[in-house]
Amino acid sequence: MRIGKVAVVMGSDSDLPVMKDAVKILEKLGIDCQVHVSSAHRVPHKTAALAERAEENGIEVIIAGAGGAAHLPGVLAAFTTIPVIGVPIKTSTLDGVDSLYSIVQMPPGIPVATVSINGAKNAGILAAQILALKYPEVREKMREFKKEMADQVEAKDRKLQDLGVDAYLAGMK
Amino acid sequence: MRIGKVAVVMGSDSDLPVMKDAVKILEKLGIDCQVHVSSAHRVPHKTAALAERAEENGIEVIIAGAGGAAHLPGVLAAFTTIPVIGVPIKTSTLDGVDSLYSIVQMPPGIPVATVSINGAKNAGILAAQILALKYPEVREKMREFKKEMADQVEAKDRKLQDLGVDAYLAGMK
Amino acid sequence: MRIGKVAVVMGSDSDLPVMKDAVKILEKLGIDCQVHVSSAHRVPHKTAALAERAEENGIEVIIAGAGGAAHLPGVLAAFTTIPVIGVPIKTSTLDGVDSLYSIVQMPPGIPVATVSINGAKNAGILAAQILALKYPEVREKMREFKKEMADQVEAKDRKLQDLGVDAYLAGMK
Amino acid sequence: MRIGKVAVVMGSDSDLPVMKDAVKILEKLGIDCQVHVSSAHRVPHKTAALAERAEENGIEVIIAGAGGAAHLPGVLAAFTTIPVIGVPIKTSTLDGVDSLYSIVQMPPGIPVATVSINGAKNAGILAAQILALKYPEVREKMREFKKEMADQVEAKDRKLQDLGVDAYLAGMK
Amino acid sequence: MRIGKVAVVMGSDSDLPVMKDAVKILEKLGIDCQVHVSSAHRVPHKTAALAERAEENGIEVIIAGAGGAAHLPGVLAAFTTIPVIGVPIKTSTLDGVDSLYSIVQMPPGIPVATVSINGAKNAGILAAQILALKYPEVREKMREFKKEMADQVEAKDRKLQDLGVDAYLAGMK
Amino acid sequence: MRIGKVAVVMGSDSDLPVMKDAVKILEKLGIDCQVHVSSAHRVPHKTAALAERAEENGIEVIIAGAGGAAHLPGVLAAFTTIPVIGVPIKTSTLDGVDSLYSIVQMPPGIPVATVSINGAKNAGILAAQILALKYPEVREKMREFKKEMADQVEAKDRKLQDLGVDAYLAGMK
Amino acid sequence: MRIGKVAVVMGSDSDLPVMKDAVKILEKLGIDCQVHVSSAHRVPHKTAALAERAEENGIEVIIAGAGGAAHLPGVLAAFTTIPVIGVPIKTSTLDGVDSLYSIVQMPPGIPVATVSINGAKNAGILAAQILALKYPEVREKMREFKKEMADQVEAKDRKLQDLGVDAYLAGMK
Amino acid sequence: MRIGKVAVVMGSDSDLPVMKDAVKILEKLGIDCQVHVSSAHRVPHKTAALAERAEENGIEVIIAGAGGAAHLPGVLAAFTTIPVIGVPIKTSTLDGVDSLYSIVQMPPGIPVATVSINGAKNAGILAAQILALKYPEVREKMREFKKEMADQVEAKDRKLQDLGVDAYLAGMK
Repeated sequence: MRIGKVAVVMGSDSDLPVMKDAVKILEKLGIDCQVHVSSAHRVPHKTAALAERAEENGIEVIIAGAGGAAHLPGVLAAFTTIPVIGVPIKTSTLDGVDSLYSIVQMPPGIPVATVSINGAKNAGILAAQILALKYPEVREKMREFKKEMADQVEAKDRKLQDLGVDAYLAGMK
Repeated sequence: MRIGKVAVVMGSDSDLPVMKDAVKILEKLGIDCQVHVSSAHRVPHKTAALAERAEENGIEVIIAGAGGAAHLPGVLAAFTTIPVIGVPIKTSTLDGVDSLYSIVQMPPGIPVATVSINGAKNAGILAAQILALKYPEVREKMREFKKEMADQVEAKDRKLQDLGVDAYLAGMK
Repeated sequence: MRIGKVAVVMGSDSDLPVMKDAVKILEKLGIDCQVHVSSAHRVPHKTAALAERAEENGIEVIIAGAGGAAHLPGVLAAFTTIPVIGVPIKTSTLDGVDSLYSIVQMPPGIPVATVSINGAKNAGILAAQILALKYPEVREKMREFKKEMADQVEAKDRKLQDLGVDAYLAGMK
Repeated sequence: MRIGKVAVVMGSDSDLPVMKDAVKILEKLGIDCQVHVSSAHRVPHKTAALAERAEENGIEVIIAGAGGAAHLPGVLAAFTTIPVIGVPIKTSTLDGVDSLYSIVQMPPGIPVATVSINGAKNAGILAAQILALKYPEVREKMREFKKEMADQVEAKDRKLQDLGVDAYLAGMK
Repeated sequence: MRIGKVAVVMGSDSDLPVMKDAVKILEKLGIDCQVHVSSAHRVPHKTAALAERAEENGIEVIIAGAGGAAHLPGVLAAFTTIPVIGVPIKTSTLDGVDSLYSIVQMPPGIPVATVSINGAKNAGILAAQILALKYPEVREKMREFKKEMADQVEAKDRKLQDLGVDAYLAGMK
Repeated sequence: MRIGKVAVVMGSDSDLPVMKDAVKILEKLGIDCQVHVSSAHRVPHKTAALAERAEENGIEVIIAGAGGAAHLPGVLAAFTTIPVIGVPIKTSTLDGVDSLYSIVQMPPGIPVATVSINGAKNAGILAAQILALKYPEVREKMREFKKEMADQVEAKDRKLQDLGVDAYLAGMK
Repeated sequence: MRIGKVAVVMGSDSDLPVMKDAVKILEKLGIDCQVHVSSAHRVPHKTAALAERAEENGIEVIIAGAGGAAHLPGVLAAFTTIPVIGVPIKTSTLDGVDSLYSIVQMPPGIPVATVSINGAKNAGILAAQILALKYPEVREKMREFKKEMADQVEAKDRKLQDLGVDAYLAGMK
Repeated sequence: MRIGKVAVVMGSDSDLPVMKDAVKILEKLGIDCQVHVSSAHRVPHKTAALAERAEENGIEVIIAGAGGAAHLPGVLAAFTTIPVIGVPIKTSTLDGVDSLYSIVQMPPGIPVATVSINGAKNAGILAAQILALKYPEVREKMREFKKEMADQVEAKDRKLQDLGVDAYLAGMK
């Protein structure tokens, strides 16, 4: 049984190799999610409808990834009051600075919760942190996840102390 | 009698001091224009309708100015096949680089004809150049306008030769 | 009676003229908030404690503003699983690009929900959108707020149609 | 029978792999186009003549691509009143930011309709949108093209719903 | 009696307050110069002629200042083989980064000797250094000028040692 | 009795209003310092000598501030093995990004310890932290200074709790 | 017998291929160093403890490398008065500009001695320069190292004079 | 018999693959040149001597290439009054923006004639243009070179007209 409901939306299926990280972490954290390709520019009516009906469809958080003149997160946010998390996708020309500015610099009144360039995993974690407000079991999962991350860092540090720099590096190859 | 029909749209009335330059040059060139405040984020339905009905309303070119995560020109372009000219408005934080990237970096399929930051006058001239394809009298006006600009530069150069640098500078104050 | 509980934290009281916008919109939306000056660099223990005890103190969302090498939002996020919203403060040297990159480019595992440079008002609105998941009355307030914004844009557009560009501009001065 | 007439000009034949996208989409939309290598710096007289005689040669829109200190579009625009569309070519050093600034930041009086970095396809579409003002059959083509794009996005979304993320990703390889 | 001959050209008389620094230093160094307003975009024929006839008119170095999509120095360089020095003018939107990239990033074959943003004084000095190859008396002037600069720095340092920081700062107001 | 010896060097006396912050904090921390105007470009021999003789003159740390193509810190570092701290000075055109890159991006072998743009105060503190390695009384001063900073933040936070946002802001004017 | 004690800390073991350069040069210069993986965000308590106990553990300089929103050097500096050297790690999206700004733009009171992007070798050299204040044998090593670098450049120049450009280039492959 | 004398200097032999383009074009234009590896930071005395004795050694123009905190051209310019042309070398981290700013933003009094990033060929051409002031046979060579470039562009354009886009592209592979 999955908890909560997150919609992961992207403007093009070429964004899927990045955006799948949001899906994977949400699944790992036991959160229900649906995934859509829906461009703000190529299918604007569908995109508007997706956001407008999000609430009645039980969606509680939207994660939207887009690159270049990345309007998708902001356009979705225009049509709903549920939180929209924006993932700026790295571009081949401007490295995603264009995506970042297009997403984060929203005008007063219509925020988009922006994460790092290609930061789809963090978008999923942020969605979970938001859902944790309502679903205590998600909060519990978040605590475990945080502990797990800490344990991994600690393990790496111990390994580095044991092996020394050269052997550790050799093992990374 | 004005010729042609251009819609000048801006996301906020705070953009009007810049965008009025488009209106002024269009009026000077004898072209009919209408002006709207219509935010892609705050009144998305109205903005969509504006673009969708543009053609049936006789609008032949749209000029749209916006700042920050400047989605307005791209959102209008999503809903119409008439040319959309985008004016990136200078912002207080990123100087309009955010506006520029948000407007010019449109994905394949949905172009926005972008002019310089705060370049509303050039947006008006570009609209006139486009209308000149259909209306020969606008072409004629464009030629006069180009000649007028050249004459002004020539006159300034003559004045500089006459006065010398110091007197010319003194006269600029 | 205020609903929910948001902590608004800033690294220096020089950020208060910007960060007060978060406080004002939260108050307008009927949400309880507390405000702290707590630098990640100058009082690191206090800052860590603030985040670590946030949950037991009933805080549901943290808004953190900082400028330059803006570590405050990320440092708070390191110590808690509740959502942290970051406000990059405009700086006198790099205009806030430094603040933006320092806040938005968080590593996998520790997201900060970043809003625009100096976007404290949007941080407040985003916090409200998050709280609306749990508190239906906040959702209602958000819908009213969105409608209010739309009405203002509509009113401005009508006024522009009535007055024309010149009179409207004259009225703005 | 092709409709209209567009000149596609580039400063160097090394730009052809990008600029061919403009030619391809124009051909697909049934628009006549001619292609030239003509550097603003290496053959300035030829370039000037190309623009000056464009109108008498029946050319209705010029598309010009250039990289680095990308003067070609602006120099062409200096010699004609027909619309000039500029394509900033990605460079090996500054990724095309130099090309973009050199093309979009034109001074008042001489606009260049700038599209995205390497956005030659969009330059072709924009040229078609401009020609549609005069040629109703091009407008019709544009509507079909827009519908086609929407259909493709819809098809991809359906496929994603059918296959799920993992199978879709596997199919992309 | 002035030595050598330098043409100082600018795209707009609004660049004169910056470009006058080139004129002043050339005059101080005893070098003959002429000053022109000649836009690459508004009077392209005149600009081309200026460069094409430069050599027969005895001009030995050209200094050209321009802002934004700053094509003037490169366009002049296209029409002559005498050295062209480019001065990127600071702009109100992109601070002159646009001007700098438009001037310095010239393609292979057509160099522009670029100086700093608003660096008209250095353009004049560079012109003098170039002329010194041919005119030994200019070389002598350059040596004196360099010595003078060194003396000024030495004098300031001595004054700082004498007065101390506070008194020196007080004297700067 | 002052402890240790720091040389504060700047390329131009126009940098003194920024660089005095290094002098002031060094004096406050009881550290001896001397101040010089010595340009890497205008008095290169003097600048080389300053660094080469630094050690025999008892100087233990050098702080160097420069703007634009800011070579002073790197040039000093070329001539000595004592630590050189670089302060990038904010410039009127590129806001100090030029200064920062010119100072921080030193090639392997010759480091410059770079602080923030206009960060002369931090340069002084860093010099003191370095001297504290050798002089225990400086370490003690650093601890007091750190405590003092923390106390100030705590005091501001208490005042904010007492006064509330509006009264605090009113008191800031 | 190694002299002095430097801690080299990195936020992730993925930084080790860069940060090992600091370790290597420190070893070459005969300086003792310990290496840690300790993320400011994933193990904040451990990271705080590392810095707080640095002095009592005999650590005299800390070198910290981190990428993206690179908080590690600043967070370590918050908890200690010993010098912290920051190494901005190149990132896959923003090339390390994000890391650089997050490290160098520290607020007044808490400096981080920043070196170039991926400049771990220079961080090691800077640490040695700092330690040389206290340990004369390190100063001696630094002088030898500087001489060695100079000799290498001289040898390369001689080889270039001997071989000529083509043969030298052929030998580089 | 070669004419004139140009010194081509670079900070590291790793710059030779770029800087050889200056040597090649100078040789092609019949100009004598010598090539040196001489770092401003690693062998500062040798570098200073190189510039100070340039004139007595018959050197008439210096071309200097450097990357990162690229001080070499400016440092050479500090020690001589002959023209110094700077070539910003592309870097692996900041793509050469650091090199460009470090070279072009020289302070008043000490210009460096900056060419494009990696623009060593243009540096050679600029040196030849400068030498042409004194050596008429170089002027003649420059005219031929310019004509040759124009012929190449014309030939490519004719080939494109003959072959069409597809066959031309096929022939480029």
